[in-house]
Amino acid sequence: MRPPFVHEIRVTWGDCDPAKIAYTGRLPAMALDAINAWWEEHLGGDGWFQLELDRNVGTPFVHLSLDFRSPVTPRHRLHCEVWPQHLGDKSITFRVAARQDDVLCFEGTFVCVFTIADQFKSQSAPADIRAVVEPLIRPA
Amino acid sequence: MRPPFVHEIRVTWGDCDPAKIAYTGRLPAMALDAINAWWEEHLGGDGWFQLELDRNVGTPFVHLSLDFRSPVTPRHRLHCEVWPQHLGDKSITFRVAARQDDVLCFEGTFVCVFTIADQFKSQSAPADIRAVVEPLIRPA
Amino acid sequence: MRPPFVHEIRVTWGDCDPAKIAYTGRLPAMALDAINAWWEEHLGGDGWFQLELDRNVGTPFVHLSLDFRSPVTPRHRLHCEVWPQHLGDKSITFRVAARQDDVLCFEGTFVCVFTIADQFKSQSAPADIRAVVEPLIRPA
Amino acid sequence: MRPPFVHEIRVTWGDCDPAKIAYTGRLPAMALDAINAWWEEHLGGDGWFQLELDRNVGTPFVHLSLDFRSPVTPRHRLHCEVWPQHLGDKSITFRVAARQDDVLCFEGTFVCVFTIADQFKSQSAPADIRAVVEPLIRPA
Repeated sequence: MRPPFVHEIRVTWGDCDPAKIAYTGRLPAMALDAINAWWEEHLGGDGWFQLELDRNVGTPFVHLSLDFRSPVTPRHRLHCEVWPQHLGDKSITFRVAARQDDVLCFEGTFVCVFTIADQFKSQSAPADIRAVVEPLIRPA
Repeated sequence: MRPPFVHEIRVTWGDCDPAKIAYTGRLPAMALDAINAWWEEHLGGDGWFQLELDRNVGTPFVHLSLDFRSPVTPRHRLHCEVWPQHLGDKSITFRVAARQDDVLCFEGTFVCVFTIADQFKSQSAPADIRAVVEPLIRPA
Repeated sequence: MRPPFVHEIRVTWGDCDPAKIAYTGRLPAMALDAINAWWEEHLGGDGWFQLELDRNVGTPFVHLSLDFRSPVTPRHRLHCEVWPQHLGDKSITFRVAARQDDVLCFEGTFVCVFTIADQFKSQSAPADIRAVVEPLIRPA
Repeated sequence: MRPPFVHEIRVTWGDCDPAKIAYTGRLPAMALDAINAWWEEHLGGDGWFQLELDRNVGTPFVHLSLDFRSPVTPRHRLHCEVWPQHLGDKSITFRVAARQDDVLCFEGTFVCVFTIADQFKSQSAPADIRAVVEPLIRPA
């Protein structure tokens, strides 16, 4: 069994607001960075940039939801666990659970659809991507 | 009846990714800017900064969810309609609907809790804020 | 004589760091937003996005420098005055002076070069742009 | 002789604009992240957040200048070399040189002043910080 994929983020002064915790408006982007890193890890270094430009595959988001459990601070690195929860014909659902010092800070669900990038048109998940994703799915 | 509150955002080149549309990671922050502007409009110019520092009231987010309906681009201004959907004893739920050229681009639900800011401790909605919010609620 | 061009920015809680002032890392982007707004104002609504995609003209930055004079806060709107200081054959130099409540907060110099956008190749300033910019130049 | 300090940044799709290169408005923040990481490395893990909150030392920026030499893309990690160039009584000057695949992408100069953080008042560089910085200075 594979170990979980965890993307580490260095939270800094510049991420924090006057309440001395990371500003809510930056947390969704951190979750997205973690999902992009998940793709890089599982597609031989290819993140959204290479998917789009080299493979002509887009994966735009159609939904995201986040629950904030505990503040994020620069006191610890932020460890974002990412896994695919569901692979539909034309969509993929990711889960992200972000922890600091083993405390769950936020968790969320993200749904993307597959597109032919240069046509911005929906398509089924390409076979090579399906083959990579399927064994990694952890159902809800 | 009051007209809806709409916050206008100028979407720019710098908000866009190589797909030539605003990057998903920036859209939640735009929705938050609109909610902050809603507070400014209804509390005599006080947004989160003044709420926290001058009134000692925090309103941290415990949940947000967004559905992306149509791409956001710099071709039009982004008009973010904001309204409170529910006011609980200790929480407030906002809805945001963001449109460009009358097309719905994204919509979302945001739940905040009221805190005593310098103690980061939950509190009931302060009476003066409750008085402002209640007449503006549009239930789901 | 034309009045100066001033772009207004709403500084918020989310722009501030724990020192309760706007984070330095966000100020250059605010200056760039002001320069983009200057283009929009003077090219009939066309900012960098339209320049690049509709006119095939890029204006990438080769230099920027900023001096920070006074902290930026959400207490006042930020008024960014923008003007072209110099137009060379293939480059343009902008000045930005950002003020809150009539206090100079930061000022800077920005040098861009003109490119054929889809070739990322340097070019002379297009004639129609030169005609717009020249009367607005305020030399150092 | 110590090896140079290099902070690695993962450049992503979300950092890029429609020209398919990192947006200029994000590069100064990347340089600042590298300077913050330099402090963390040399002060036992303390970056600006801990300097300010635990040591009551602020280091606000009074100047920054950047020259952009070559586009930044997600094709390679961005390696930001950071070193102090000068330590005055009350100020410190950093240099940052950012490279991808051994190509210089941008370089810059950053001047910070030392403050008593909770008074936002200028002070001389604290002795323990001076002792750490002085051996690392590489004059212009």
